[in-house]
Amino acid sequence: MKGKYIKGRVIAYDGSQLSPLWCFKNFDLQGDCVLAFRGPCDVKDEFMVDLEDQKKGSTVAADDMLHFIVEVFQSDLISTVLLQRLLIVTVMEVIKKFGEELGLRREGDSIYARLDGEVWGKLSVSIATVSPLSGLIHLGLNVSTEGTPVRTAGLSEIGVSRLDDFADETLRRFVDEFQGVQFDAHKVKPVV
Amino acid sequence: MKGKYIKGRVIAYDGSQLSPLWCFKNFDLQGDCVLAFRGPCDVKDEFMVDLEDQKKGSTVAADDMLHFIVEVFQSDLISTVLLQRLLIVTVMEVIKKFGEELGLRREGDSIYARLDGEVWGKLSVSIATVSPLSGLIHLGLNVSTEGTPVRTAGLSEIGVSRLDDFADETLRRFVDEFQGVQFDAHKVKPVV
Amino acid sequence: MKGKYIKGRVIAYDGSQLSPLWCFKNFDLQGDCVLAFRGPCDVKDEFMVDLEDQKKGSTVAADDMLHFIVEVFQSDLISTVLLQRLLIVTVMEVIKKFGEELGLRREGDSIYARLDGEVWGKLSVSIATVSPLSGLIHLGLNVSTEGTPVRTAGLSEIGVSRLDDFADETLRRFVDEFQGVQFDAHKVKPVV
Amino acid sequence: MKGKYIKGRVIAYDGSQLSPLWCFKNFDLQGDCVLAFRGPCDVKDEFMVDLEDQKKGSTVAADDMLHFIVEVFQSDLISTVLLQRLLIVTVMEVIKKFGEELGLRREGDSIYARLDGEVWGKLSVSIATVSPLSGLIHLGLNVSTEGTPVRTAGLSEIGVSRLDDFADETLRRFVDEFQGVQFDAHKVKPVV
Amino acid sequence: MKGKYIKGRVIAYDGSQLSPLWCFKNFDLQGDCVLAFRGPCDVKDEFMVDLEDQKKGSTVAADDMLHFIVEVFQSDLISTVLLQRLLIVTVMEVIKKFGEELGLRREGDSIYARLDGEVWGKLSVSIATVSPLSGLIHLGLNVSTEGTPVRTAGLSEIGVSRLDDFADETLRRFVDEFQGVQFDAHKVKPVV
Amino acid sequence: MKGKYIKGRVIAYDGSQLSPLWCFKNFDLQGDCVLAFRGPCDVKDEFMVDLEDQKKGSTVAADDMLHFIVEVFQSDLISTVLLQRLLIVTVMEVIKKFGEELGLRREGDSIYARLDGEVWGKLSVSIATVSPLSGLIHLGLNVSTEGTPVRTAGLSEIGVSRLDDFADETLRRFVDEFQGVQFDAHKVKPVV
Repeated sequence: MKGKYIKGRVIAYDGSQLSPLWCFKNFDLQGDCVLAFRGPCDVKDEFMVDLEDQKKGSTVAADDMLHFIVEVFQSDLISTVLLQRLLIVTVMEVIKKFGEELGLRREGDSIYARLDGEVWGKLSVSIATVSPLSGLIHLGLNVSTEGTPVRTAGLSEIGVSRLDDFADETLRRFVDEFQGVQFDAHKVKPVV
Repeated sequence: MKGKYIKGRVIAYDGSQLSPLWCFKNFDLQGDCVLAFRGPCDVKDEFMVDLEDQKKGSTVAADDMLHFIVEVFQSDLISTVLLQRLLIVTVMEVIKKFGEELGLRREGDSIYARLDGEVWGKLSVSIATVSPLSGLIHLGLNVSTEGTPVRTAGLSEIGVSRLDDFADETLRRFVDEFQGVQFDAHKVKPVV
Repeated sequence: MKGKYIKGRVIAYDGSQLSPLWCFKNFDLQGDCVLAFRGPCDVKDEFMVDLEDQKKGSTVAADDMLHFIVEVFQSDLISTVLLQRLLIVTVMEVIKKFGEELGLRREGDSIYARLDGEVWGKLSVSIATVSPLSGLIHLGLNVSTEGTPVRTAGLSEIGVSRLDDFADETLRRFVDEFQGVQFDAHKVKPVV
Repeated sequence: MKGKYIKGRVIAYDGSQLSPLWCFKNFDLQGDCVLAFRGPCDVKDEFMVDLEDQKKGSTVAADDMLHFIVEVFQSDLISTVLLQRLLIVTVMEVIKKFGEELGLRREGDSIYARLDGEVWGKLSVSIATVSPLSGLIHLGLNVSTEGTPVRTAGLSEIGVSRLDDFADETLRRFVDEFQGVQFDAHKVKPVV
Repeated sequence: MKGKYIKGRVIAYDGSQLSPLWCFKNFDLQGDCVLAFRGPCDVKDEFMVDLEDQKKGSTVAADDMLHFIVEVFQSDLISTVLLQRLLIVTVMEVIKKFGEELGLRREGDSIYARLDGEVWGKLSVSIATVSPLSGLIHLGLNVSTEGTPVRTAGLSEIGVSRLDDFADETLRRFVDEFQGVQFDAHKVKPVV
Repeated sequence: MKGKYIKGRVIAYDGSQLSPLWCFKNFDLQGDCVLAFRGPCDVKDEFMVDLEDQKKGSTVAADDMLHFIVEVFQSDLISTVLLQRLLIVTVMEVIKKFGEELGLRREGDSIYARLDGEVWGKLSVSIATVSPLSGLIHLGLNVSTEGTPVRTAGLSEIGVSRLDDFADETLRRFVDEFQGVQFDAHKVKPVV
């Protein structure tokens, strides 16, 4: 798996980026890969793949997010959702390294950060799906909390200020995690 | 996924338990399932599926462990290893709820607990493999640190004393996590 | 697998219903499911997935049908077609319970009913296909024979009058059959 | 799929026949195939793949059975169990053609025949499993009811006397059914 | 696998032919198949599946080509690309039988022919992809070199003049190769 | 894919080497890999996976061979046989580079070399199979023709003398071919 951070460039996420080979077409990342970039988030209806959100009429929007796009080949949807969980967990581990000692809580694919006492804000939006060729994951982390439709938390608010370093470290750790998974899958005998 | 804790009974883990339908044959758990029990651990050579351990001549042994066996059907090895990571993470979240405020660190499928200053002990052993029918996971958590071949940590040592409750809570959370993964896999449109 | 009968509501089947997560989006049935409803049938060209019908210029139409939509995840096309056969067989077994003692004959995925002597009428239309996420089946049973393009038979004509009960019983039996298949798939050892 | 009936030769079924490529090794049937032969049935413990039977201590035995062995490549277990159901249904359709007008009832993969009033006898034993290469099915139909451990029915008892013709016709129909399934899997467009 | 050569008819290849069941819909070839025809080649942007070509702004065009379309069901992309290589190799073996003793060189899925000394021309264009149902391959061999955007070689130029025979022989050999692969996949025991 | 040549060491091939993770266990090659070594060949009955050979009573034996073992994860049998063909073709291309200008002919997975006029000798033995985790290939090329049970050809006989260079070059080319296949599988859009 290759990782790449598109540093210093604003890319608006509208959902069309969650498509097979988008990273290859636009940033020459081939094969299993994870791409990070920063920019606003406003998922268009036509690119909304989360039918639960669609049914609820939820909007997925924010003025400034740190985005991660993952593409993994020969991966079915269950496997892709499991990998999404691993991405979430990795991000939480890196936040703890960068951010202040504050509360973080995971619910499925969502990260919540304690803002004040028992007040928690949602830090992330995420979705996992498949194309006929690959599994695809989007994870967006609020940088600020401007323009988000619900009570949220932002990375800057919880003390993660060096965003470029944070992105680089997250990519590095996630690529390591993925390679660890592959290593462990290539060292065991099957049982019968 | 069904979860079951075999309470109040000592079952010795020797590696033969990591086989397809063992939970069904012995404890009537059918389909995707997770089983917990307590007992010593001494993996026989013939049931050692971890070739890395085998090459190193590692022994997998402890006098008293809390064991988890997971079986998931139609699951390839990568997917099973990813599910193993989710089990590890779930266990860590439950430990933090039960145990004292102490350091926990994950490296792949291993949990380390801070014992004293910068001294860490390995709390867990784990392996994931496949049969022709299913993915299989074993996770063993040291209860005490008697009889373990390397520097280890034990649940009792780090403040997790109500082991039956801990087992029940871990099963409940892991079953919830698994169902959350399935829910998320059944609510998205594919992309093309 | 969950079953649901949308009772007392007319829903026109035009082929667009044979799409991934249609049952979830519209009727909150998540995961493997079978949905039944009643309404006319007129498959639009753009939703015609049966290329054999398309080549022959066949139309798939009827004024009043009892429809079944099945969605099964992680199911390839062969498996989905086999499940379609099981649905057909289940329907025939339920018809025999409800209807008069008359002849029924299956040819692949089509049910024929003896109308008079050696005159047989086609009772059903059916198709099975896949999306990138799931197997999908449509089965339509003529209630009356109005508006059908070829010589057909209708449920009312062959003595199945309590249609709501018939739909409920069919759903119940098919869900049972499906769970029986899963049970049998989770009780055997692999061979080598 | 190729079908072959080993006519006029007694072959004892002890469970070892349910293994990958057994039909190829012994009768030169290559690829997807169905083989029929006649002989006693006594499944040895070591070849018992049905863990439910094993747990109950059931024995699978009869003095004279008509056996069918099916092997299908690139077939997972769910798909193989579904194919087993189709084999059962096909056999029932052929029995009705050959035998007297009597009651037949299917429960999952078992055929029951009405013997007298409300007395039913089990006509068949069947199991489906997988090897790493293929799906495998065994179906045994009692010819007589000698040597069967439970209340059974036999083909001869229910009026199916020309057993060679019955075997040939069943093979022909099942091969047709299988090819029909493949035909239907190769004529539809996917949906998205 | 069935092979068919549409002899004596000019069919323009614009990329839309690389779609599931195109051979079935238009030429009644069902299941795994390979179709050959002759005609110009001009792949429209909307049907360009090769993102590398698209990124480079390459055009895929020629005035007269011999085209092969292969469709194989239950085939993932890696398997389809490997089959494409086998098609390329088969074509090279047939060219050597038909053509003059000249140099041929393969680079991945491209065939180059020595034109003069160290001058080589590209003889072929090819792509492999998947639909949700099947693997799909296009291979186009230049007949003449008119209308090709880069330095190319043509079959006529390298001495393959009897094109209909060449097409027939290639189809025959490729169908044989494919059946040989299936034969070899149905004669081995798995290992554990 | 990693390639490794075990130079200067004689390893006897008896068939037990064709097992999952053999290259990892013995030579630390992890993941997709190809290993080459030199030594005699005498496949024991218990490790004979080719049932066609077994039925014919063929022996697979030679005094001195250059062996290649390939292991590829997440590869079904058809895909593994196709990869075997690509290995065969790669070897033939390298032989032509190293050896004298002589005739080579491929029949499925066998290479024949022209010895004298119309006398051809079999140069290779090969088999492809799967474990529950991986596809596995063995290819043995006769170095000399001593100890071979049928009319054979040897590499030395046809002018391939620098065997270490030949092995290295073949490994390099095959790894390149495999990576080319993966590259081509990660640059195309799916079609629907």
